[in-house]
Amino acid sequence: MAKEELILLDFWASMYGMRVRIALAEKGIPYDYKEQDLRNKSQLLLDSNPVHKKIPVLIHKGNPICESSIIVEYIDEVWNHKAPLFPSDPCGKARARFWADFIDKKLYQIGRKLYTTKGEEHEAARVEFIECLKLLEGELGDKPYFGGESFGYLDVSLIPFYSWFQAYETYGNFNLELECPKLIAWAKRCIQNKESVSSTLPELPKVFAFVQYLRKRFGIDD
Amino acid sequence: MAKEELILLDFWASMYGMRVRIALAEKGIPYDYKEQDLRNKSQLLLDSNPVHKKIPVLIHKGNPICESSIIVEYIDEVWNHKAPLFPSDPCGKARARFWADFIDKKLYQIGRKLYTTKGEEHEAARVEFIECLKLLEGELGDKPYFGGESFGYLDVSLIPFYSWFQAYETYGNFNLELECPKLIAWAKRCIQNKESVSSTLPELPKVFAFVQYLRKRFGIDD
Repeated sequence: MAKEELILLDFWASMYGMRVRIALAEKGIPYDYKEQDLRNKSQLLLDSNPVHKKIPVLIHKGNPICESSIIVEYIDEVWNHKAPLFPSDPCGKARARFWADFIDKKLYQIGRKLYTTKGEEHEAARVEFIECLKLLEGELGDKPYFGGESFGYLDVSLIPFYSWFQAYETYGNFNLELECPKLIAWAKRCIQNKESVSSTLPELPKVFAFVQYLRKRFGIDD
Repeated sequence: MAKEELILLDFWASMYGMRVRIALAEKGIPYDYKEQDLRNKSQLLLDSNPVHKKIPVLIHKGNPICESSIIVEYIDEVWNHKAPLFPSDPCGKARARFWADFIDKKLYQIGRKLYTTKGEEHEAARVEFIECLKLLEGELGDKPYFGGESFGYLDVSLIPFYSWFQAYETYGNFNLELECPKLIAWAKRCIQNKESVSSTLPELPKVFAFVQYLRKRFGIDD
């Protein structure tokens, strides 16, 4: 496939964008990466995702695919020759989708409150964030990956959050290695064993510096 | 398949539950329906969906499947002999998933504001609700169904909302047939042509009476 048939509109620090980059790397698919300025959105982004106007968008042969979970499923369906992300049984598929949906509904919103709120709201977010991670840790159990012996859809959905963990820990005032040791061991295993992950995730201090910048922009820090 | 292998935990007025009932009817699958008291949740519901504690839950051979969109995909994958809900091309699949996700993120929440809020918030919800329906009407275009010539995943996702339209119209103070004539024609077509829909959707006045009861319970009406 010619590289120019596949374009990814993305932003480096986006967990959602990282999911798509990891899935494409797992499949070994070349693509054109177009970093987006989210404060001055490009006409291509606005035209490709007129409903939500958000990254990531994968444009394949001129067809834009939006929403990271949907894009990752699309990638798995189109390039099904290598590294299947789902188990073949419908029950295992539904289970992976359920937890990915849980991450989408909970983790980002609660994580965001850790660095954007204060007082009672912040305290509630701290408690809820750890609860969410512990539920995910329970789902992982003693398996090497959420996908079992192999790295799968739910691994792709969750691992990008790890790059935000330094920021979450600092502003959440907790130690995630103490709270969720198995989950942290899983994240380190992904980085160590999966080139798709290690080549995609930004360094934690870089994301932390970005969150410091966001807090200043939101007027939380001077 | 023995009927007792498939149990649906549901609540009659739930749009999400109706999706599952329509999908099972499309496939012609018998199941045990267990109406749930949402103010006094059964141990079976709490055990089957410990994370969200919500209906619908489909229990298949003892395995609970949660979240309506995920359940409908599961049904389509397990009973793939009849009435496929997705097109075979990944792009069409992604498109159906995108709009179903749009409904999940927008329509229920905004629709709920029509009968639970007042003043500016209510006015904003009125505008946004019509905008959402017009976007969906644009996606329908001149096709008989969202699935094209045949009734598909996005049709299943949206049609249950039609049973709430009398309530939305009354408390939103608009006429949806005037605002979105093609969408209303589509809904009537679904009811007329699809036994799975007409046998599942409750009568609009029954849902309206339920919303009147909710408003009293929330203290909005005396």
